Amino acid sequence: MKSYRKELWFDTPSRIAFLNITPQIETCLLESGVREGLVLVNAMHITASVFINDDESGLHRDFESWLEQLAPHAPLGRYQHNRTGEDNGDSHLKRQVMGREVVVAITEGRLDFGPWEQIFYGEFDGKRKKRVLVKIIGE
Amino acid sequence: MKSYRKELWFDTPSRIAFLNITPQIETCLLESGVREGLVLVNAMHITASVFINDDESGLHRDFESWLEQLAPHAPLGRYQHNRTGEDNGDSHLKRQVMGREVVVAITEGRLDFGPWEQIFYGEFDGKRKKRVLVKIIGE
Amino acid sequence: MKSYRKELWFDTPSRIAFLNITPQIETCLLESGVREGLVLVNAMHITASVFINDDESGLHRDFESWLEQLAPHAPLGRYQHNRTGEDNGDSHLKRQVMGREVVVAITEGRLDFGPWEQIFYGEFDGKRKKRVLVKIIGE
Repeated sequence: MKSYRKELWFDTPSRIAFLNITPQIETCLLESGVREGLVLVNAMHITASVFINDDESGLHRDFESWLEQLAPHAPLGRYQHNRTGEDNGDSHLKRQVMGREVVVAITEGRLDFGPWEQIFYGEFDGKRKKRVLVKIIGE
Repeated sequence: MKSYRKELWFDTPSRIAFLNITPQIETCLLESGVREGLVLVNAMHITASVFINDDESGLHRDFESWLEQLAPHAPLGRYQHNRTGEDNGDSHLKRQVMGREVVVAITEGRLDFGPWEQIFYGEFDGKRKKRVLVKIIGE
Repeated sequence: MKSYRKELWFDTPSRIAFLNITPQIETCLLESGVREGLVLVNAMHITASVFINDDESGLHRDFESWLEQLAPHAPLGRYQHNRTGEDNGDSHLKRQVMGREVVVAITEGRLDFGPWEQIFYGEFDGKRKKRVLVKIIGE
């Protein structure tokens, strides 16, 4: 069994952002030499997500406004977590809706994807350096 | 390490549907010959889900009405994604709540499940052919 | 390829509870002897979750009140599932938001975590014995 590990770093200029990281994951897969197996891609921070959906900018704006409805950022006093001095109570909740991680099949050395699947980094408390972990196991 | 891959096809008569696909996954597991490992089951389309919950029809109606409250289908203009000519903005959001994939342990050649766990295909934009991927790795 | 399996049992005194189970998972990892691989941790019951977030009590109260807003427990008649004699329709929905499982990378014999990642058991219908499955594969 082969295994491979890489950290990807992100620093988004806005508090909320969605970045298509599929090309970086494909590069990792190539580096790993794995032809059959699984790749795990997860946010290493608890106010960010990794998820799979469509690379369409209108949809990303829909995600942002929908998540803001489900877990509004303001007023900050809405969240007990913010009494610790944080202002990211909403970010922890948004991340739960969108998920921490994806597991993707590797078949014949490629990400085994349907026609529109793309991997995104979802940032809900940006403007600072944060990491994504890529772990690949297989043969 | 063994690996196994299969696509399952679905074409639901309604826009929203929940199908128990546990028997098909059990058949895949038998075909794979894997006794110890993991099975990944994921929707290959970004307006559908694979999830684990209870096979109880009342609960499935609860899922449908709850998701409709969280991310209503209409009015279509509610979603920027629908300006692309699509009418499935809500389906992309519903799929995020229910999840893209499940990873299930394989122990002694069987799905290692609690008493009520069953695997479901969740369709949120049906009436057309769509796929689920089953990937098994192990020994 | 090595594989390892363990069941963890929980019986929470309240209907809703969040328990940090990271130490138990680290013990499992040590017992498994796996240095490189993946660990799957999943609720074996369909009204409970396993998820990764922050070990901060204010945030846990935020999770509880937020989930109660998204899927209120009462009135019980709100859920068709409760017509079966159950009173846990809301618990099945809350579990979908928080997720069934996490998959965590194992690197050099340790859980490959970011600075604040901790694994939680999320109980939404407690006051009885329920199980979590830990499955580890790797080398």
